[in-house]
Amino acid sequence: MTAYSQSKINRVKRGANRATYDVDQINSILDDGFLCYVGYIYDGMPITIPMAYARREDKIYIHGSTGNRMLLSILESEKTSITVMHLDGLVLARSGLHHSVNYRSVTLFGTLKKVENDADKTNVLKWIVNQMLPNQWESLRPMYQKEVDRTLVVEFTIETASAKIRNEGVIDEPEDYDLDIWAGIVPIKQVARYPIADKGKPENMSIPKHILDYYQENK
Amino acid sequence: MTAYSQSKINRVKRGANRATYDVDQINSILDDGFLCYVGYIYDGMPITIPMAYARREDKIYIHGSTGNRMLLSILESEKTSITVMHLDGLVLARSGLHHSVNYRSVTLFGTLKKVENDADKTNVLKWIVNQMLPNQWESLRPMYQKEVDRTLVVEFTIETASAKIRNEGVIDEPEDYDLDIWAGIVPIKQVARYPIADKGKPENMSIPKHILDYYQENK
Repeated sequence: MTAYSQSKINRVKRGANRATYDVDQINSILDDGFLCYVGYIYDGMPITIPMAYARREDKIYIHGSTGNRMLLSILESEKTSITVMHLDGLVLARSGLHHSVNYRSVTLFGTLKKVENDADKTNVLKWIVNQMLPNQWESLRPMYQKEVDRTLVVEFTIETASAKIRNEGVIDEPEDYDLDIWAGIVPIKQVARYPIADKGKPENMSIPKHILDYYQENK
Repeated sequence: MTAYSQSKINRVKRGANRATYDVDQINSILDDGFLCYVGYIYDGMPITIPMAYARREDKIYIHGSTGNRMLLSILESEKTSITVMHLDGLVLARSGLHHSVNYRSVTLFGTLKKVENDADKTNVLKWIVNQMLPNQWESLRPMYQKEVDRTLVVEFTIETASAKIRNEGVIDEPEDYDLDIWAGIVPIKQVARYPIADKGKPENMSIPKHILDYYQENK
């Protein structure tokens, strides 16, 4: 499959020229982040919960405690949607109406099931830690069985999806280009600052290469 | 009012020690951003839409085109929830389970109504532009009547809310502190890069002070 099918649930109407249903582009946006916004319904109210995630193929994995109200609720309803957005810039136009942001966002619609097998759960938790910071899991102590037991791991299968991407300059009304008003882009980026060691032993250890690499690539 | 009332809809159960219902703290988190995640229900599916916002007192203002499916839907249901989150750091523990992030997040529950009056709508649009970049509206050309007409402005009144804040170091299992594993925080920040002028006149204009100020404060 190279593109998700379009239906009324995922078809982008406003700004359709910025929409894409391309699987690779959507995966690329997902792989650039580790925080997603999961929707659920509680007492008729739509609520959005930020969560860490990992992606593998057409699956998104999230986790929480075994008593997590949101995870239990979406498992029961067997479906939800997940949104991920990266802010890339402020678009400062000559008029208020044409102010915008450059961004990459995806909305995923899919079905949910619990990951039951202990080895599978542990593997997913590794993916989630490594989606936050590559190769981090390999430096940690192994999980205890009791830690696996108290963790609820949920697999979301993407049934369909859409992305919206704005990645361009200012678009103003033709007659406004002559005004004496500054217009342009302020690029925005989420960056890492230098790692701060925990008290105790880490203060006397060198920072592991994979963490310094992350800092260098994201500073 | 100094704190929002607690009920089952907004009471934080997981990580209750990180929860606050304090109005000033919640407003401070809201004032540090301009992008929110608005929940709505479409065909029984909870969907989350990222939107620009402005806050004034206990009101959140969002806007879109007069045909915006999400805005029309939440206006009809007369209620929704809105989430805002700032990521402040990666918490790298000695075990996978204690990995976390430092963050400030709020979830607001409230009621909705359309802003009808043209002067009020224009004023709200000013607030939304200025929440993105302070003092920006004052440098723009005035809105045309047709622009006001095609914009739907929605006022969300916060009925209740909660915030969760994590702002501390690593918390590991007592027996793990002796392991030869680096632990610590990687601070994360959303920053602005140097403004890029649009083609044409802005290339020969100096960047306005309020935009340079924004860059200096956020670089």
